[in-house]
Amino acid sequence: MTKGELSYIAGFLDGDGCIMLQLIYRYDYVLGYQIRASIVFYQDSRNSNFLSWLKEKLEFGYIRARNDGMSEYTIVGVEAVSKVLKSLKPYIKLKEKQVNLTLEVLKEMPGQGRKMTPEKLLELSKKVDGFLYLNYSKKRTNTSIKVEEFLKSKNLL
Amino acid sequence: MTKGELSYIAGFLDGDGCIMLQLIYRYDYVLGYQIRASIVFYQDSRNSNFLSWLKEKLEFGYIRARNDGMSEYTIVGVEAVSKVLKSLKPYIKLKEKQVNLTLEVLKEMPGQGRKMTPEKLLELSKKVDGFLYLNYSKKRTNTSIKVEEFLKSKNLL
Repeated sequence: MTKGELSYIAGFLDGDGCIMLQLIYRYDYVLGYQIRASIVFYQDSRNSNFLSWLKEKLEFGYIRARNDGMSEYTIVGVEAVSKVLKSLKPYIKLKEKQVNLTLEVLKEMPGQGRKMTPEKLLELSKKVDGFLYLNYSKKRTNTSIKVEEFLKSKNLL
Repeated sequence: MTKGELSYIAGFLDGDGCIMLQLIYRYDYVLGYQIRASIVFYQDSRNSNFLSWLKEKLEFGYIRARNDGMSEYTIVGVEAVSKVLKSLKPYIKLKEKQVNLTLEVLKEMPGQGRKMTPEKLLELSKKVDGFLYLNYSKKRTNTSIKVEEFLKSKNLL
């Protein structure tokens, strides 16, 4: 990608994109919760060519046409989100805190084949809570408090 | 401005900015309606520094803090909007049609000291109607039909 393309995409992400760190409950996970990092771009489906162009440039992720006339381009996962955010970081002006917090959490996630510990999950969940303020979220069901409750209920903490 | 800055701002405008052509009723105008071109950027007032940065780069316009916690940076007027759009045009990917239509209408606006004719106003108003579709507007009170009705009611057409 050229610097111009990276600048353009950073501007678009700052304007209309979404960087998210979430705690997702998974009934089949021993630790109960997963930390999910994602980058999402929304666009009227009439402009889905634009999302295809974005995906071609950023390489990761998938595009999904919703049934309300909107399309979503989502990049998810530790490796994909880290790579994309690292490439955009020098050009981001508004969502710098979201980028830094996400990269900080992702860096501490255990790599492939290594296990997440209850203590580490709780520690990272508290950092994920910070997103509540950064994204001005109105509601968030899962916080580190729920993670802690779950881990204690299973005698994992 | 550097190419990187122009690319970034074009991306931000494509994502969260608004280019508008509107017909504004002015009780003190002989022809009744004014064609108003504007570019607007919105942002949570907590990020108003960002809007100040944009204004510093684009040079024209003014920033206004609304009383709902949002701030608006608005560029209005034939000369200012033309200059800004011409500089961003090569980098715009999504709002190209809005940029082209606005520049086309603004180019035909009579310059300083020259008068708008009823015929020209009606012709340009019809082009402004095209914005209804481009911006997916839900409502638009003033269309070229109202302009035509007004001009006929005053025996100007």
